[in-house]
Amino acid sequence: MSSTVGQTIKCKAAIAWEAGKPLVIEEVEVAPPQAGEVRLKILYTSLCHTDVYFWDAKGQTPLFPRIFGHEASGIVESVGEGVTHLKPGDHALPVFTGECGDCAHCKSEESNMCELLRINTDRGVMIHDGQSRFSKNGQPIHHFLGTSTFSEYTVVHAGCVAKINPAAPLDKVCVLSCGICTGFGATVNVAKPKPGSSVAIFGLGAVGLAAAEGARVSGASRIIGVDLVSARFEEAKKFGVNEFVNPKDHDKPVQQVIAEMTNGGVDRAVECTGSIQAMVSAFECVHDGWGLAVLVGVPSKDDAFKTAPINFLNERTLKGTFYGNYKPRTDLPSVVEKYMSGVSLLTQ
Amino acid sequence: MSSTVGQTIKCKAAIAWEAGKPLVIEEVEVAPPQAGEVRLKILYTSLCHTDVYFWDAKGQTPLFPRIFGHEASGIVESVGEGVTHLKPGDHALPVFTGECGDCAHCKSEESNMCELLRINTDRGVMIHDGQSRFSKNGQPIHHFLGTSTFSEYTVVHAGCVAKINPAAPLDKVCVLSCGICTGFGATVNVAKPKPGSSVAIFGLGAVGLAAAEGARVSGASRIIGVDLVSARFEEAKKFGVNEFVNPKDHDKPVQQVIAEMTNGGVDRAVECTGSIQAMVSAFECVHDGWGLAVLVGVPSKDDAFKTAPINFLNERTLKGTFYGNYKPRTDLPSVVEKYMSGVSLLTQ
Repeated sequence: MSSTVGQTIKCKAAIAWEAGKPLVIEEVEVAPPQAGEVRLKILYTSLCHTDVYFWDAKGQTPLFPRIFGHEASGIVESVGEGVTHLKPGDHALPVFTGECGDCAHCKSEESNMCELLRINTDRGVMIHDGQSRFSKNGQPIHHFLGTSTFSEYTVVHAGCVAKINPAAPLDKVCVLSCGICTGFGATVNVAKPKPGSSVAIFGLGAVGLAAAEGARVSGASRIIGVDLVSARFEEAKKFGVNEFVNPKDHDKPVQQVIAEMTNGGVDRAVECTGSIQAMVSAFECVHDGWGLAVLVGVPSKDDAFKTAPINFLNERTLKGTFYGNYKPRTDLPSVVEKYMSGVSLLTQ
Repeated sequence: MSSTVGQTIKCKAAIAWEAGKPLVIEEVEVAPPQAGEVRLKILYTSLCHTDVYFWDAKGQTPLFPRIFGHEASGIVESVGEGVTHLKPGDHALPVFTGECGDCAHCKSEESNMCELLRINTDRGVMIHDGQSRFSKNGQPIHHFLGTSTFSEYTVVHAGCVAKINPAAPLDKVCVLSCGICTGFGATVNVAKPKPGSSVAIFGLGAVGLAAAEGARVSGASRIIGVDLVSARFEEAKKFGVNEFVNPKDHDKPVQQVIAEMTNGGVDRAVECTGSIQAMVSAFECVHDGWGLAVLVGVPSKDDAFKTAPINFLNERTLKGTFYGNYKPRTDLPSVVEKYMSGVSLLTQ
């Protein structure tokens, strides 16, 4: 038992005091976990664009001071009342979305959008009592995505913590708690390309590369990367992308270019940019009869997805996915195992 | 062997000489089937709105004189060279879309949109030689949908003819060759509602009733019929519809009404009207996390399907289907058997 159990911990955190202003690394107080909560010692945290977006706080309700961070790995320091699936010393990944285990979503085989612990970017406190566990000189500091991993210690709802193999390298697997699973899962859990099939990946950032890797491990033979930045193509080859299209190089819509390359369209498309134009292209570039497009990128609030309905009638399918359809507690441990076994090159 | 084999047959047909003008029942000549074709004696034919639409020929290239009709049943009179799956005397359903058996669509488990024999409303001749098999006093008369069943005899591509159980009542099963399979298949083959689930059916015409029946035999517990004509609700009860919504009775969008009735949305929705507004409502009324909407109704050419992309991101799925995803030759015989066994009340 750690001597800190039940005590407030003083540690360093990177605090965002104002929108768009540099984070300040200073001491904060982290209260003990309450019922259903876990206090984690964060060992590694990476930076995701979502952190930047909410730090910038343009077009959103600003919520400051706040501790950002949500792609991370750590070790359980202590657990609150009623937490049974985790104990001090467990290696764990905190996740920005959770799994209460009891709601209709958690009980559905198809959904990972837990009613209780679904991502909530506006909430800056714990669900249990509507309070923050972070403070500095008595001033509460807001949480972010229920994770706030830019801190040496953080308190997270137990439903948002996946227990993983203690042999997993925490400096690598921390990225599984957001972008990599989002892209990889979109392909392997949702698009499900068959061996020998063709897959178009829109956007070759981290999420898109993970989606491409999902296509590679699924045995897709043609993996077509689509990006406005040609410099990304070289890196993408390591993740299985073997054909490239830069929409800027063509006078016609990219969906038409892809249809011409593939005798009518790709079998699967995965959209990882959030651009509404890319979403429409990703949908319209899949083959009629069996084509499936999966939307991953987060759109702007005012965007409208628009297409001719005949594109659906001709037996195309459009789905969206959130966090690659992974249920954090149930599925993450096996994703870590997959990485450990070398099935996927991701995070190496 | 019929004595008519290899001979031109003179018989009665209902000829459409001009767009929108009454059909005239008179004698036509029906040439023998060529390679890969079948000549059918039509015993029963029903009327589908698609016949009326192309007879009216508004907004389309008119193709007259023409023999309409595509929902029918009959008996094989003779077959052309190379036809092996049918022989004279076989009971059969001609279908407006076909199954060549060789193309990527026919080989795909997911598609029924045969490359060669997919529905083509503009073609008025046989594929084999670009000629019509119908004539009157030497003047060719156009085919319609490859079926032209408003004639005592017709010539059809063998890939568009399903051989069925000779014990099946041809006066009943004729409707399986179009609308009933379209609606029933949309539910059982595509929407696939689980036992105990909720399904919304938009449009309670023949296709919608068949879709409702598909939900009933799938064990759905809530089958919500949506129609602008409340008088249709009574009939719909026979097909399993047990709740009704008339959008005209509400001030808010029907998708919102349905979401409120169902704690966030139905599990499945099937759109059978062709109205773009109903398509959007059908999609937006399914539950996040697992909801699936299936589009069946044929839209106007200039319609645009428009929705907020977040509706997809929240793990909703939108698919379209054509002829209920049935492959005519492969699947229709078993649909007929299902009817014969009394599993479904349809066509009784």
